[in-house]
Formats: sequence, structure tokens, C-alpha cells
Amino acid sequence: MSRAPHHPTRDQIELPALMDCLGDPIRLAIVYNLARLEHAASELRCGDFNVLSGKSNLAYHFARLREAGLIQTRISGTTRFIRLRRDDLEARFPGLLAAIISAATRDAERLQLPDCELVTAV
Amino acid sequence: MSRAPHHPTRDQIELPALMDCLGDPIRLAIVYNLARLEHAASELRCGDFNVLSGKSNLAYHFARLREAGLIQTRISGTTRFIRLRRDDLEARFPGLLAAIISAATRDAERLQLPDCELVTAV
Repeated sequence: MSRAPHHPTRDQIELPALMDCLGDPIRLAIVYNLARLEHAASELRCGDFNVLSGKSNLAYHFARLREAGLIQTRISGTTRFIRLRRDDLEARFPGLLAAIISAATRDAERLQLPDCELVTAV
Repeated sequence: MSRAPHHPTRDQIELPALMDCLGDPIRLAIVYNLARLEHAASELRCGDFNVLSGKSNLAYHFARLREAGLIQTRISGTTRFIRLRRDDLEARFPGLLAAIISAATRDAERLQLPDCELVTAV
């Protein structure tokens, strides 16, 4: 239990922190890919995102997304899994995450948001 | 004409820049107030926002909002007027601005977003 990283509760999710977090193209790309691959896997391995950036850089971005309340991190053995906190975000700010994902999807090519491949089906 | 400040075209509005811009509570408060007072005035004077922050600090925030494509600035004599670029933003990212304004309105008290008063009817 001590290894479970800190997550803000639903009520602790704050709008400016959420906006600020998604001002970064790599974090936007992570959210875009989590949404894009949700039909195939409700959570992804952190390793699935290696195409986006270096490992330590990615670890920083995952932490920022977790602290802003955008993703839930689960550690199992040596593997970290992440998923979008869709229900919490929808309850806190109805329609906001969907509008952001739709905007990112629209601009995916323009922003050069890379498409991650699932390393392994979860 | 030379005094007209630079605005990105509709197509030049970028999602990460827009998110980053609204990661700041004062800029969020400006957008919230522009939306809140739109029924009374399609544009506001920069002076209407003096309750939010000091004048030079506000000038910086107005410039950031203008550069991100969120507001249109018009200079008339010694007065600056600003308005939300609702049509451009809606065309670029459908539903996004509305979802952000709705989230800000929901959290206005919690974020202590001050309500600006119209100094003068426009």
C-alpha cells in the first residue's frame, strides 16, 4: 500500500491546474493516446508511451498528470498502469475532458501527437 | 492601423497554447468575466478588470490572452476594449470554450474568481 502514489480526490481536482497541465504537448499526447486506445484497453502500461519521449521525462509527465487528477496510476510488481479518470473529471467538470480530447484529436496531425502502440494487450 | 496589436488568425490558434494560457487563475477570471458580462456588453474596457490585479500585471495577462487567440483587443483613443473570440474558438475547437467557461462558472466561488463591475456601459 505504501507504494501507491498520491492522487487528488475527485473534489480536489482544480481547473487552473488541469489547464496548466495540458498546456504541454507531451502531456496532451498522453491523454490523447489514453482516450484513443480506451476501446482496446481501459489502462495502458507506462512503457506503451515510450515513443513520446525519454523514460525519465515521461515519468515526470505521468506524475504531473496524476497530480492534476487527469490519470490514475496503479503499480503492479514492476509495471505501472495508467488510465484516464473520466468519471471523476466528468463529475467535476461536465463535458470538459470530452471537448479537450475532441480538440486534440482534431489537431493530432498538426500537433504531431504520435500514436502509441500497445506493447501488450492488458 | 499601426497601433492595432497582433492577433493570431483563427487557424493559428493552438490547443496547447490555449490550455497553458488558461492555467493562470487571473486569466481564467478575465475569461469568466468576459463571458459573464457578454449579455450586457459584447466588449469590455480593460479598466473594468481593475479589481483583479494591478494595471501592469493585467496588461501582461491581456497580452497573453490575445496571443493565445482567446480575446480580441481594440484600441480606441486611449481606451482598450477586449472581447472573447467566441466564433473563432468555436470554429477551431467546437464546445471547448463553452466547457471551460461552464467549469469556471461552477468553481467561481471556490477559485475566488472576483466579479468585475462594468465601469461604464459600452
